[in-house]
Amino acid sequence: MTNTAGKVIHCKAAVAWEAGKPLVIEEVEVAPPQANEVRLKILFTSLCHTDVYFWEAKGQNPLFPRIYGHEAGGIVESVGEGVTDLKPGDHVLPVFTGECKECAHCNSEESNMCSLLRINTDRGVMLNDGKSRFSIKGKPIYHFVGTSTFSEYTVMHVGCVAKINPLAPLDKVCVLSCGISTGLGATLNVAKPPKGSTVAIFGLGAVGLAAAEGARIAGASRIIGVDLNSSRFEEAKKFGVTEFVNPKHHKKPVQEVIAQMTDGGADRSVECTGNIDAMISAFECVHDGWGVAVLVGVPHKEAVFKTHPMNVLNERTLKGTFFGNYKPRTDLPSVVEKYMNKELELEKFITHSVPFSEINEAFDLMLKGEGLRCIIRMEE
Amino acid sequence: MTNTAGKVIHCKAAVAWEAGKPLVIEEVEVAPPQANEVRLKILFTSLCHTDVYFWEAKGQNPLFPRIYGHEAGGIVESVGEGVTDLKPGDHVLPVFTGECKECAHCNSEESNMCSLLRINTDRGVMLNDGKSRFSIKGKPIYHFVGTSTFSEYTVMHVGCVAKINPLAPLDKVCVLSCGISTGLGATLNVAKPPKGSTVAIFGLGAVGLAAAEGARIAGASRIIGVDLNSSRFEEAKKFGVTEFVNPKHHKKPVQEVIAQMTDGGADRSVECTGNIDAMISAFECVHDGWGVAVLVGVPHKEAVFKTHPMNVLNERTLKGTFFGNYKPRTDLPSVVEKYMNKELELEKFITHSVPFSEINEAFDLMLKGEGLRCIIRMEE
Repeated sequence: MTNTAGKVIHCKAAVAWEAGKPLVIEEVEVAPPQANEVRLKILFTSLCHTDVYFWEAKGQNPLFPRIYGHEAGGIVESVGEGVTDLKPGDHVLPVFTGECKECAHCNSEESNMCSLLRINTDRGVMLNDGKSRFSIKGKPIYHFVGTSTFSEYTVMHVGCVAKINPLAPLDKVCVLSCGISTGLGATLNVAKPPKGSTVAIFGLGAVGLAAAEGARIAGASRIIGVDLNSSRFEEAKKFGVTEFVNPKHHKKPVQEVIAQMTDGGADRSVECTGNIDAMISAFECVHDGWGVAVLVGVPHKEAVFKTHPMNVLNERTLKGTFFGNYKPRTDLPSVVEKYMNKELELEKFITHSVPFSEINEAFDLMLKGEGLRCIIRMEE
Repeated sequence: MTNTAGKVIHCKAAVAWEAGKPLVIEEVEVAPPQANEVRLKILFTSLCHTDVYFWEAKGQNPLFPRIYGHEAGGIVESVGEGVTDLKPGDHVLPVFTGECKECAHCNSEESNMCSLLRINTDRGVMLNDGKSRFSIKGKPIYHFVGTSTFSEYTVMHVGCVAKINPLAPLDKVCVLSCGISTGLGATLNVAKPPKGSTVAIFGLGAVGLAAAEGARIAGASRIIGVDLNSSRFEEAKKFGVTEFVNPKHHKKPVQEVIAQMTDGGADRSVECTGNIDAMISAFECVHDGWGVAVLVGVPHKEAVFKTHPMNVLNERTLKGTFFGNYKPRTDLPSVVEKYMNKELELEKFITHSVPFSEINEAFDLMLKGEGLRCIIRMEE
């Protein structure tokens, strides 16, 4: 790396000029990091549904032009004033939410919902000065969730950057930036299935399969996958799913189907669709006395979770999780180690790979529902 | 005690002949215990809302004549075939739910909802032969929740009888048979407030005050009592309640009032009213990231718990509990010890005392909402 610290970097970025229109690779200027900021060289990034959701910008405040991308792996290029935890050359994962290490949430052992750096999808600028670090010929381009990894270089708040083992292959562990950790942590950190237990997973996309992978790692003996698309079962077997239920193939509610399969209910369930009916089913399908249901999927704004309170009183637990309850800086390094020691298998999540110049292909694959994760290689 | 084992005992019992009509003290016959049953001499019993609720029998299948009563302390008079855990002379607390020690629930560390002996309010007979052990001149009188403690002698399944320290005063610890343990356990076993935390208690009746007592024992620094009756606050202070909110005195929902008082929400809440709106408020009043809400109160059949799923996804936990998650035989002895070592204060729950002949006075007090627990002395 040449010494670019303190200077504006000119590099390529995939800019979204309008909602739903293909990204355009542009030459952008990336300003140096300010206080408590770092500038990263992104080596690999991948595409997550959240990028597509905000790029489509349906029913949202449109914020364009914008640089999307939030699952990635990179190397610190330079650091701003006051940054002591990171130095140039560190291998890192950028994260869409942060850890200031000072607020009530960061001080709580249970929460990862940092008050200062919690995800904010409406903000397109840096916290420090309310401005963007990206521009094209002086015209600012908005950031996305503080990451904007669809750029060869990006600037982030240091609290959103997890330093990881430099031996970890960034083209694999980059997927731990968001979806895979979300599903994995939902099971390992929140549902906590005891060894030998039965876990129901609602939704067999990447997040749901990561939740299944968590159940496999925890030693669940039965992992019941629930999805409206039966073709997903074959793939899901690789992630430890042992049985499959398609709610469309049953007359009775899926919670009753699962109760029947399991002599009263699953021990744990993890909901990864965001569909409100699936959330209710996921809660009602767990066993009374000890069942725990964990909600992961993000619902529509008007959704209402409804259940008879006796379902709660009969000693079921309902929990929600955000980013698998991982604190980005404190916990992600250990998730990378789970991959390094072969406990966690990441390769099976990576179904496609494209060079940066073909980033729109990754969008096409996701819109068609093909594959799980498509790695975008920044260096061709 | 004279040797009455194996013989029918003639004694006094308070019989409910009709829904809502005063009990009548009658001479009843109490048959000897059968296999896995024990016959108890009741020394003290107290009145709980559940007795009154089923005695009023509104919207229920009426089951009369019946002997109510389920909070009590007594001594084993004789045991049936196969009973090895108890012997005549043992001091015991009868419990409305049981612990067979063999089913999946009893084998689970988390559940106390025994499959065999879980509360059954519709059954008025013994499990063994489907018959009653009570009669008047040969005509059977129904049991109530397997306890029927409004009788000088009663017959119970051994799995519903907790053997306790014989030094414990039965006129005090009898209140641990139901309501007080329910509230106490909801806090200590389920909500588990960390030392120094803030706990909101919804409903300041005996169960809610027992939940507050649990929060006091756990070392909560703020205990916020919520009740529609402001006159309860003065009494509640004895149970550790430090602040009071009457929802009727606020324009905004009580969950918002509590969030404002606590910089974002209580750490824990315990709902002891059974009112569905209070349940929703209790859930929504806990802090995101780590808040835990515990439902205790039993709702109406048509009640629907409704909340926006983001309230769950923001890392709140909703749990329900039954009998404070205490396993009756395994755990109640240690609750009695909490009283013996002065950690738990029971005297303040006992506001009245009447001889058995005046049992209807206890019903009048409860219907008027006066006091917390009225002890009924079986021996005048």
